[in-house]
Amino acid sequence: MQISNGKAEGVNIAYIGGGSRGWAWGLMSDLASEGRLSGKVRLYDIDAAAAKANEIIGNKYRELPETVGEWEYQAVGSLAEALTGADFVVISILPGTMAEMASDVHAPEKHGIWQPVGDTVGPGGLMRALRTIPMMLEIGHAIRDFAPDANVINYTNPMSLCIRALAEAFPGIKAFGCCHEVFGTQTLLADALADQTGIAGATREDIKVNVLGINHFTWLDRASYEGTDLFPVYESFVNQHYETGFNNHHGEEWLNKYFACLHRVKFDLFRRYGLIAAAGDRHLAEFMPPWYVKDPETVEAWGFGLTPVSWRVAHRESLLERSRKLVSGEETVKLNKTGEEGIRQICALLGLEDLVTNVNLPNRGQIANLPMGTVVETNALFRKGGVQPVMAGSVPEPVLALLSPHVVNQDLALRAAVTCDRKLALTAFLNDPLMTLEPVAAEHLFDEMLENTKKYLPGW
Amino acid sequence: MQISNGKAEGVNIAYIGGGSRGWAWGLMSDLASEGRLSGKVRLYDIDAAAAKANEIIGNKYRELPETVGEWEYQAVGSLAEALTGADFVVISILPGTMAEMASDVHAPEKHGIWQPVGDTVGPGGLMRALRTIPMMLEIGHAIRDFAPDANVINYTNPMSLCIRALAEAFPGIKAFGCCHEVFGTQTLLADALADQTGIAGATREDIKVNVLGINHFTWLDRASYEGTDLFPVYESFVNQHYETGFNNHHGEEWLNKYFACLHRVKFDLFRRYGLIAAAGDRHLAEFMPPWYVKDPETVEAWGFGLTPVSWRVAHRESLLERSRKLVSGEETVKLNKTGEEGIRQICALLGLEDLVTNVNLPNRGQIANLPMGTVVETNALFRKGGVQPVMAGSVPEPVLALLSPHVVNQDLALRAAVTCDRKLALTAFLNDPLMTLEPVAAEHLFDEMLENTKKYLPGW
Amino acid sequence: MQISNGKAEGVNIAYIGGGSRGWAWGLMSDLASEGRLSGKVRLYDIDAAAAKANEIIGNKYRELPETVGEWEYQAVGSLAEALTGADFVVISILPGTMAEMASDVHAPEKHGIWQPVGDTVGPGGLMRALRTIPMMLEIGHAIRDFAPDANVINYTNPMSLCIRALAEAFPGIKAFGCCHEVFGTQTLLADALADQTGIAGATREDIKVNVLGINHFTWLDRASYEGTDLFPVYESFVNQHYETGFNNHHGEEWLNKYFACLHRVKFDLFRRYGLIAAAGDRHLAEFMPPWYVKDPETVEAWGFGLTPVSWRVAHRESLLERSRKLVSGEETVKLNKTGEEGIRQICALLGLEDLVTNVNLPNRGQIANLPMGTVVETNALFRKGGVQPVMAGSVPEPVLALLSPHVVNQDLALRAAVTCDRKLALTAFLNDPLMTLEPVAAEHLFDEMLENTKKYLPGW
Amino acid sequence: MQISNGKAEGVNIAYIGGGSRGWAWGLMSDLASEGRLSGKVRLYDIDAAAAKANEIIGNKYRELPETVGEWEYQAVGSLAEALTGADFVVISILPGTMAEMASDVHAPEKHGIWQPVGDTVGPGGLMRALRTIPMMLEIGHAIRDFAPDANVINYTNPMSLCIRALAEAFPGIKAFGCCHEVFGTQTLLADALADQTGIAGATREDIKVNVLGINHFTWLDRASYEGTDLFPVYESFVNQHYETGFNNHHGEEWLNKYFACLHRVKFDLFRRYGLIAAAGDRHLAEFMPPWYVKDPETVEAWGFGLTPVSWRVAHRESLLERSRKLVSGEETVKLNKTGEEGIRQICALLGLEDLVTNVNLPNRGQIANLPMGTVVETNALFRKGGVQPVMAGSVPEPVLALLSPHVVNQDLALRAAVTCDRKLALTAFLNDPLMTLEPVAAEHLFDEMLENTKKYLPGW
Repeated sequence: MQISNGKAEGVNIAYIGGGSRGWAWGLMSDLASEGRLSGKVRLYDIDAAAAKANEIIGNKYRELPETVGEWEYQAVGSLAEALTGADFVVISILPGTMAEMASDVHAPEKHGIWQPVGDTVGPGGLMRALRTIPMMLEIGHAIRDFAPDANVINYTNPMSLCIRALAEAFPGIKAFGCCHEVFGTQTLLADALADQTGIAGATREDIKVNVLGINHFTWLDRASYEGTDLFPVYESFVNQHYETGFNNHHGEEWLNKYFACLHRVKFDLFRRYGLIAAAGDRHLAEFMPPWYVKDPETVEAWGFGLTPVSWRVAHRESLLERSRKLVSGEETVKLNKTGEEGIRQICALLGLEDLVTNVNLPNRGQIANLPMGTVVETNALFRKGGVQPVMAGSVPEPVLALLSPHVVNQDLALRAAVTCDRKLALTAFLNDPLMTLEPVAAEHLFDEMLENTKKYLPGW
Repeated sequence: MQISNGKAEGVNIAYIGGGSRGWAWGLMSDLASEGRLSGKVRLYDIDAAAAKANEIIGNKYRELPETVGEWEYQAVGSLAEALTGADFVVISILPGTMAEMASDVHAPEKHGIWQPVGDTVGPGGLMRALRTIPMMLEIGHAIRDFAPDANVINYTNPMSLCIRALAEAFPGIKAFGCCHEVFGTQTLLADALADQTGIAGATREDIKVNVLGINHFTWLDRASYEGTDLFPVYESFVNQHYETGFNNHHGEEWLNKYFACLHRVKFDLFRRYGLIAAAGDRHLAEFMPPWYVKDPETVEAWGFGLTPVSWRVAHRESLLERSRKLVSGEETVKLNKTGEEGIRQICALLGLEDLVTNVNLPNRGQIANLPMGTVVETNALFRKGGVQPVMAGSVPEPVLALLSPHVVNQDLALRAAVTCDRKLALTAFLNDPLMTLEPVAAEHLFDEMLENTKKYLPGW
Repeated sequence: MQISNGKAEGVNIAYIGGGSRGWAWGLMSDLASEGRLSGKVRLYDIDAAAAKANEIIGNKYRELPETVGEWEYQAVGSLAEALTGADFVVISILPGTMAEMASDVHAPEKHGIWQPVGDTVGPGGLMRALRTIPMMLEIGHAIRDFAPDANVINYTNPMSLCIRALAEAFPGIKAFGCCHEVFGTQTLLADALADQTGIAGATREDIKVNVLGINHFTWLDRASYEGTDLFPVYESFVNQHYETGFNNHHGEEWLNKYFACLHRVKFDLFRRYGLIAAAGDRHLAEFMPPWYVKDPETVEAWGFGLTPVSWRVAHRESLLERSRKLVSGEETVKLNKTGEEGIRQICALLGLEDLVTNVNLPNRGQIANLPMGTVVETNALFRKGGVQPVMAGSVPEPVLALLSPHVVNQDLALRAAVTCDRKLALTAFLNDPLMTLEPVAAEHLFDEMLENTKKYLPGW
Repeated sequence: MQISNGKAEGVNIAYIGGGSRGWAWGLMSDLASEGRLSGKVRLYDIDAAAAKANEIIGNKYRELPETVGEWEYQAVGSLAEALTGADFVVISILPGTMAEMASDVHAPEKHGIWQPVGDTVGPGGLMRALRTIPMMLEIGHAIRDFAPDANVINYTNPMSLCIRALAEAFPGIKAFGCCHEVFGTQTLLADALADQTGIAGATREDIKVNVLGINHFTWLDRASYEGTDLFPVYESFVNQHYETGFNNHHGEEWLNKYFACLHRVKFDLFRRYGLIAAAGDRHLAEFMPPWYVKDPETVEAWGFGLTPVSWRVAHRESLLERSRKLVSGEETVKLNKTGEEGIRQICALLGLEDLVTNVNLPNRGQIANLPMGTVVETNALFRKGGVQPVMAGSVPEPVLALLSPHVVNQDLALRAAVTCDRKLALTAFLNDPLMTLEPVAAEHLFDEMLENTKKYLPGW
């Protein structure tokens, strides 16, 4: 790699889960749009055909006239090949298949436990963690051996536990976790600013926030736009739209149903706890007692949706079809900036700019009143040499009360996964605020979900 | 005060709540039985007549031939009088009347929330805390002004919050909290030892335990008798008696019903969490989700009882009657050692012996993984110069999961009480594991309970 | 104050020590050069005439054609007047007079203790701290009463103790300390880059560093320019210039002698401890055992100077003369950007930009292995809402060994100053690495220095 | 092992350094005197003949009529043999020979650095640490493999670093360090009590103290006898005897010269720092700047002695001679209780009694303001299940100033020894308060001492 005149050439990126059709295509587009970087992306995926398809697709970007960043894509057959010589590692994997995800999300529904997403906390999130952690450890092992100095960007969920597993098992690895949920809330704040004061045109980057919490259950205790404190603005915004919610998903009808929200949960949390919750309502609702997800009617009344895995299956099919068309040339690749920050983070870590953004890292004191070691989400300064959290202060006690069970469960789930300890896992299962079943019934459900997903739970 | 030849003369004790008929009579008896101490007890109570009655009763102990500790009792009219010159302060007060206690315990029952005691956590415990904390602060204020160097022994519930309130508002005061619940568990372990191994005659002092947790939700991670590890003994004991429980309340039939237990909750917690819970089942059950107190039938099935406040009212009447008889001489005072440790603690703090026993104090690291400042229960070394906690180690994560909501609620309740902050109090109310109501219903109950007890909630 | 379109109008600044001729004139020039801000500066000084002169001088800036920031200056007669309504408070005071400074610097010389500056640590720094802390507390008191929400920027030395005193006595005050010593080292790194690699033109802002340590004894464990790690560059630079030093003070002959240095101390520290010391050699040498300041010959051999107070007195006279000319119009004000960052910090705190720079604040974990509460210097993020330290990591143990006595002395000096405790102050005096005298001789010197400066030591 | 009726039979002790003539003989005598214990001691020593001699000597104790504890002694040929099956491990080794000790103590004297002992800190203590730590790690390795559950009692110096090395490398090992220096100070306090108040006959166990600090530089901030605070007693005692010292070494003339002291250093430290230093003056003086050890005259004036290694050599010869006589039967073994507490500690760890005494363990918060992990000396509760430190509070700042360089050096020396890092070791060497040489001269001395002892410094 060579850095000069504000440009980095010969950058090596290893993409683990490189057959992905969501994140990988986004990255291709973002890389092609970034004139300061060029180099090579090695794609590794247990689905070798998918990686190969992405190699073909990725290499087409160079041919676009608008492309300013030249990248070569290469599908490889092993972690070792992907990682050797990598400056950056991107991890974006699916732990298991849609069948396991269906168990995570829908098995609990029969017992009255509804999860809009089911990939972070709740019974589904726990099961997914038990599957994912061993995979992350395998990847971490390879990173330690083949790319010990690389910066490692994880997008896989459950985010906190992926980072925690890497950090505890391989303390030398420079891994951090990126998530765009806070960005959406910055956008909502820009909308609120326009709605309440008429100041239009603020971008999400213009909205300065102090971030604290854990991934998908992140909170803002400060927000401003230039000199304007956005808390009073948001308060009047919430008061105006509390009953009906606020629809800022323009023209995204199709996605709307399962991914969008009217922010009513966020508004309710603001009223009760005084901070701005900074994630989609689908995620936020899963961290709370079942106030917002008691049943599908309640979910609908609060203005968000339960995402059926059947939809994901169908969506996956359409992406596969699109992949075939892109490979064959029936459809052509296009530059569409994703709004993700991965590329800017890479630039900052190469020394090309300073960047302050939110990130998931083990707590070393950036949140004063959460335990050391817990993976938390706060702002951090990205620079050559590493990611340094910005000290975010303390979580106010009411929000701390909400975070507490999840903080403990992060510990329990990690240790359960690493040691295949059924008792610990069951303790975490029972400790989740969504768990309304009594111990015996809960244990039945736990066993059922274990059984459903046992193909991806070796050692259990 | 004069200490020589292993005896302390002229010791001054201030008894706040000195009209009490339970703790005060016990103290009188214990003091009369202790030959190393003599001096004066000043009794202060907002019920001046009760204090006066206890002055008369207390002074009768000197006339008993078996009495070896000579004490003078004097009812006084103010905190200042009680405290001036005091070497020790004993606090044992009732915050409010039986009417408030009836609201604490029984108001939630209409909404399906059953509390066996209702004085520590749960909706009732919170309300009691809101009433008690201002009283403790008033007492603390007087201690700071009139007896800043005294050792302060609190017996009042909610224990943790009483100590916390004193410690945060008056850091210079040497206050600690004593509770006998661990003693009962030591006795149970002695019973288990006899039951499983035939080794009889072990006293509770012979059972060495490592104590960690919070008051009434205390846990043992080590227990031994001489060279014998009691964990395997307890495990087989639990296995044998799990279904039926174990009755070690011999000949205490009358009390049995409302105060005793068959230890089935304790047994179940041992199986699930691996540690020995060290308090009565009535207390333990209140800290958990409503697994053991779902309804009166469940409570009965688990082998313990709900204590109706009507029983307390009747019991109080019988004690009042007995007080009248003791004052009039119709009945005579007797020496009955209580099994409490207050007097030994006083001896140890005077330098007459070393004592290691459990105590409630703010966490300064004695429990490694609970927040600093939280009032915790661990062993401590009592010596002249003060109470020094013994480092108890870390709470295992499964038990930490159980403690967490109560640790946060300790903070919330304290701040709510000190600032009369309805929102914080409601947050604590909702955060309690016994709270099964949804927010709106919970808020109605909260308001009802506030209204019921408003006479003792100035500023709310 | 009004903020819109990236500009802030009606900003109120209180300048404590507003009669200063160094910092105040610099601020005037910087404010006039900054187009995003306008408003009013209230100048308060115990030397009312000096403040009045600065009022006249400051108001002349508005008349310069190049001025883009319009400010009104007003000398006021009390802290209350200066502070009421202030958005920002700048503190830059001289604690005592040149006579006290002469004692600080020169009294120890008679005993073989040489201090190049004598305002931070060493016997002189301690004495200065004892004088300054009560003044800072008086100012802090007024800030709490009249401008509790203002951001407070301190430039007064001893920096660490000024900030510590404010932070401990008035936890609600938003005070931080700014110092340009790190900037000079960034410039040296830019020079090293040019010298070793030929890459010229890097500004000090282009040199990205991770800052850790305490004021005037600050260290860099990372430094980069764009993608280039500057540690190997600096190593070869040090190796080349170790014996002769490196002169990067072009055309500053006059100042050179007493303020400049050839960086040989810095080079030697780099070789011994592996980190880049980031302050002028005159400061650095004072924190060490007397290796570099054993006697004037040693000082000269290491390429820096001892600043005699007589020079300061003469320099002060020339500034007074210049002040007279500026007031009378004999000389005209000019725009000369100082290179200080105060104005950018103000802009950032108003929400007009993000700024990452080094700052002195109590340790809340930004340096993992220094005690909480110690005032440390690290990078921080400046934004509307406050200054948030960036987590700087741990100080390597060899450097920790150097910092340790000064960290303890920070505590000792603060408590000594606040309580006028001779024993504590003497302990700090003896604990300083420059103190080579045995206890009895040291105590004599201590008493002599106290006596010399007693006019400014009420209560001692 | 079998424990019943307050007795433990079949206890297995592994004695590493079992050829020792000091500690080993003392242990034999103490074991023979303790009726609650019996079992077997396996003696391992690199000097196999010495171990064999001790086997013979040890087995003679059973024949004494006064012996109440029956023990079998067996010399073994490997760590594995000694450790397998051990309930307790005692470590008391000499790192190297008298030749290395001579370098430690006397090489610095040529440069004006005088060390009365030279085995803990100072240049000699550091060199000894560099030799000892690898040996401790080898022993620790064997303990982990062959006796992972044993309690490990270390008597080897440098104590803090021996325990630190074991604790960091083998966190599972239950090692603690015992030292009798505090006992001597308790005895001095009993003497002071008799001297000042006429209360005679107090034993050292009657003197209750709160212990904080590091081994050989330990401090008491509380001391009492029954109800009497000993601080005022000690103050008047110090005032009376400050000039002349106090001789409480009755009839120990011969040892007096090199091991005894008149406590003048202790008295001076009390006056300067307000706490009671709790070790022999020879040790205390080594931790300070060279105030008390400037030269032999100064040492003598302060009433203690420099122990020449030639004396140790001669003393060793006399012990060897005695060993020969004991083996041959020319001289007979005798019961002489040593006053050490090892046996009571063993009894307590077996569950036969509770014991509170001082011990060296890694800081887990028992001293609030020293870093976590630093090996500190405080009181601890010994019970079946382990050693639990008693929370000792914070070290007052003036004493913290004295401890600081040694706390940092503990870190530096450990890392230097483990990684054979010359630069780190030299940094520690320069950071010692006894080091008055400038860097270049210091480095020469350092190299000379390394060279002198290189036989025991593999890897350097």
